[in-house]
Amino acid sequence: MSRDQLKLDDYLPYLVNRVGAALVATYTRRALAANKLSIDMWRVLAILSDNGGQRQIDLSSITSIEASTVSRIVTRLVRLGLVTRGRSETSNREVLVQLSPKGRALVKKLIPVALGLEDTAAGGVSAADLVQLKRTLRKIYANLANAQK
Amino acid sequence: MSRDQLKLDDYLPYLVNRVGAALVATYTRRALAANKLSIDMWRVLAILSDNGGQRQIDLSSITSIEASTVSRIVTRLVRLGLVTRGRSETSNREVLVQLSPKGRALVKKLIPVALGLEDTAAGGVSAADLVQLKRTLRKIYANLANAQK
Repeated sequence: MSRDQLKLDDYLPYLVNRVGAALVATYTRRALAANKLSIDMWRVLAILSDNGGQRQIDLSSITSIEASTVSRIVTRLVRLGLVTRGRSETSNREVLVQLSPKGRALVKKLIPVALGLEDTAAGGVSAADLVQLKRTLRKIYANLANAQK
Repeated sequence: MSRDQLKLDDYLPYLVNRVGAALVATYTRRALAANKLSIDMWRVLAILSDNGGQRQIDLSSITSIEASTVSRIVTRLVRLGLVTRGRSETSNREVLVQLSPKGRALVKKLIPVALGLEDTAAGGVSAADLVQLKRTLRKIYANLANAQK
């Protein structure tokens, strides 16, 4: 590639952003809008479902959502009865965010839609190419996380 | 994958979002913050540099930024003297957004940083895997765009 112009259709950050935005749009239409969830609310619920209770600071790093925004989102989810904030069993000073039974039921209902989104996205992509894609995305994330230091 | 749980570390939308957020964070630190640009402002400037003057409605679809947000961003970029809004040569009723000489100079200065971001991201990824990754991302975007219809 010439080093003095961007060809966006061959520029990785552009391609990643475009796919990311399309994934959010499709998932919003299929699942989030009807449940009055924002994509960031969903991301927090999905992490809690996959990883169990989390401290807010860890929610921020796992979801890539800014800490102050995570705090606002958790407050909204608490009001909706989808998560609880409570003391950790191992440390009385730690506040853990956890799914409530209602939150757990909502995530359970949406997981098939979330998996269907991945199926739509990967339609016509071979299983081997999909594995390779995910491996490369993990590698790229690690490169960027290292560059951050 | 079991169909009743999400394994986020193997879930494509999660991996894409995480890479997207890391790309934005790194590029903000390396280029945008010092130039008082938001990532969306940069996206509009990059499109105008790559594709020439655009109607606002086309800027929205190319950047994946909502139309009302694009309008706000263009207004800010006009105030900063980086773009102009003017009549198209081919149709007097069409308003085209174009880079100003100052905007063109800024993009020219940032393109090497943007290409360096891609180099950082793709460190240790073979050229063949990178080509394959981009091809798969284009395919995924097409799948999602078709699902939209």
